[in-house]
Amino acid sequence: MDIQHYLQGKRQLINDHLPSFLAEKSIPGPLKDSMLYSLQAGGKRLRPILTLAVLDAFGKNSEAGLEAACALEMVHTYSLIHDDLPCMDDDDYRRGKPTNHKTFGEATAILAGDALLTFSFQMIAGSSTYTPVQKVALLTILSEASGAEGMVAGQAVDMESENQELTLEELQSIHERKTGRLLEASVLFGAVLADADAEEFERLGAFSRHLGIAFQIQDDILDVTGDSQLMGKQAGSDEHNYKSTYPKLLTLEGAKIQLAHHIKLAKDNLRKTKVDLVILEGITDYIVNRNH
Amino acid sequence: MDIQHYLQGKRQLINDHLPSFLAEKSIPGPLKDSMLYSLQAGGKRLRPILTLAVLDAFGKNSEAGLEAACALEMVHTYSLIHDDLPCMDDDDYRRGKPTNHKTFGEATAILAGDALLTFSFQMIAGSSTYTPVQKVALLTILSEASGAEGMVAGQAVDMESENQELTLEELQSIHERKTGRLLEASVLFGAVLADADAEEFERLGAFSRHLGIAFQIQDDILDVTGDSQLMGKQAGSDEHNYKSTYPKLLTLEGAKIQLAHHIKLAKDNLRKTKVDLVILEGITDYIVNRNH
Repeated sequence: MDIQHYLQGKRQLINDHLPSFLAEKSIPGPLKDSMLYSLQAGGKRLRPILTLAVLDAFGKNSEAGLEAACALEMVHTYSLIHDDLPCMDDDDYRRGKPTNHKTFGEATAILAGDALLTFSFQMIAGSSTYTPVQKVALLTILSEASGAEGMVAGQAVDMESENQELTLEELQSIHERKTGRLLEASVLFGAVLADADAEEFERLGAFSRHLGIAFQIQDDILDVTGDSQLMGKQAGSDEHNYKSTYPKLLTLEGAKIQLAHHIKLAKDNLRKTKVDLVILEGITDYIVNRNH
Repeated sequence: MDIQHYLQGKRQLINDHLPSFLAEKSIPGPLKDSMLYSLQAGGKRLRPILTLAVLDAFGKNSEAGLEAACALEMVHTYSLIHDDLPCMDDDDYRRGKPTNHKTFGEATAILAGDALLTFSFQMIAGSSTYTPVQKVALLTILSEASGAEGMVAGQAVDMESENQELTLEELQSIHERKTGRLLEASVLFGAVLADADAEEFERLGAFSRHLGIAFQIQDDILDVTGDSQLMGKQAGSDEHNYKSTYPKLLTLEGAKIQLAHHIKLAKDNLRKTKVDLVILEGITDYIVNRNH
């Protein structure tokens, strides 16, 4: 199993499908351009890949997960557009390209984010592939993960905590909501569509929560050690922005130990499930070994 | 039937329930305060009242519609918060109170809007009152009405058209998306929850579309003739903002004729249904006769 090849194939599949959902829609030109600009700005596509990978691990047809997977990527994309705004993180570049508001102006960027968020729910609710019970499960997971107790809460607390020294617990709590919940939702989406039982659901949830923490620790480590070119943003930007990070709180060595710890716990939980391990373990290792 | 008394009772019911859905949720303090601030800023509550009124007109228990009705008001509230932002309409006051971003800052206002939108889907998906099929119907209607082809599209085109002379057709097309679609959704929500058949659904849809246009014409008329105190905003502000309006395109007299025309068509469609007419006709008349 060549995991790089697997990821590449899934990424291509997602990149091919993501814009197609908007193609037939009568959306005003600049709004549609702005939505597509950020959807097509590249990225790892980790969230939709996780949904497809869980379906593969259950031995199901993963292409049936494409709509749900692309809905997750739309929510992720909306969150990046709003986080980049001048009144939030004020970022001019994202993945090496000018941010949405730099290209389309603030008003259109806000509306494009609003529209992508709304469209993610529309895609799932209107899907001809999923049953009503599956749709309700997906929409519940997605709205809880991305809303006032999940991703939006994480961003709100992150903004409040700017220039403040955080404890490890506070840092973890921000990341858990800001990025962890949507990664968890990505794994649970696969479980819902594979009709997983409650026990598998619980174990995959635990797997995804440790995976999410590991992902964030590696992000922080890359900000210290990484190559700006590969990352599409300036290495050292967390330091520059006075952000609390795992290396800052634990030292680089301590952060690497925590990373290994959460990778181990993620895999332990994965091995308790009955799904095929190869793909999901491969993705877990990829998260530690990635260089951007 | 005293329609004022009816509206008053429903408004009270909605005002009592609206904040309660957030009460038990672990939302970061400032974000929660910001969401509640705008939810509790008053307003006519026309959208949720329409849902409850349709249920009453079908002879159903309208309190069963409260969750869905409050979800609609959350979407309406989110749209007001984002529309008021400096990069959009740049409004300092809304319903006589400082706008959300004036009180909580832009970042929190954007996040509060995002969170309210997301929560509206969460409430419906997670409801213990509705069947999965009803939930999917509600979520499809809501997402289509409020997204890139509906409300967000209306705001996007409205922003683009600022300081431009619009034709009547262009003006109508903006309003249809910016306010009409969500008013239509409010009526259709009631029809879904009353298990209306396809024919009733279609007629109530036509009723609501004419009602929506009438509502907007009366809004424009009030901006010319109304009392600033009652409206909670400055009369004449459309003129001041160089906005295209019905009175400007048609003269005040012409706008009043159009208003009467759409009220008649709304009632004609209503009378083709088998529902009790008193409440919905009463609300239709209220829309013409309101002074704020």
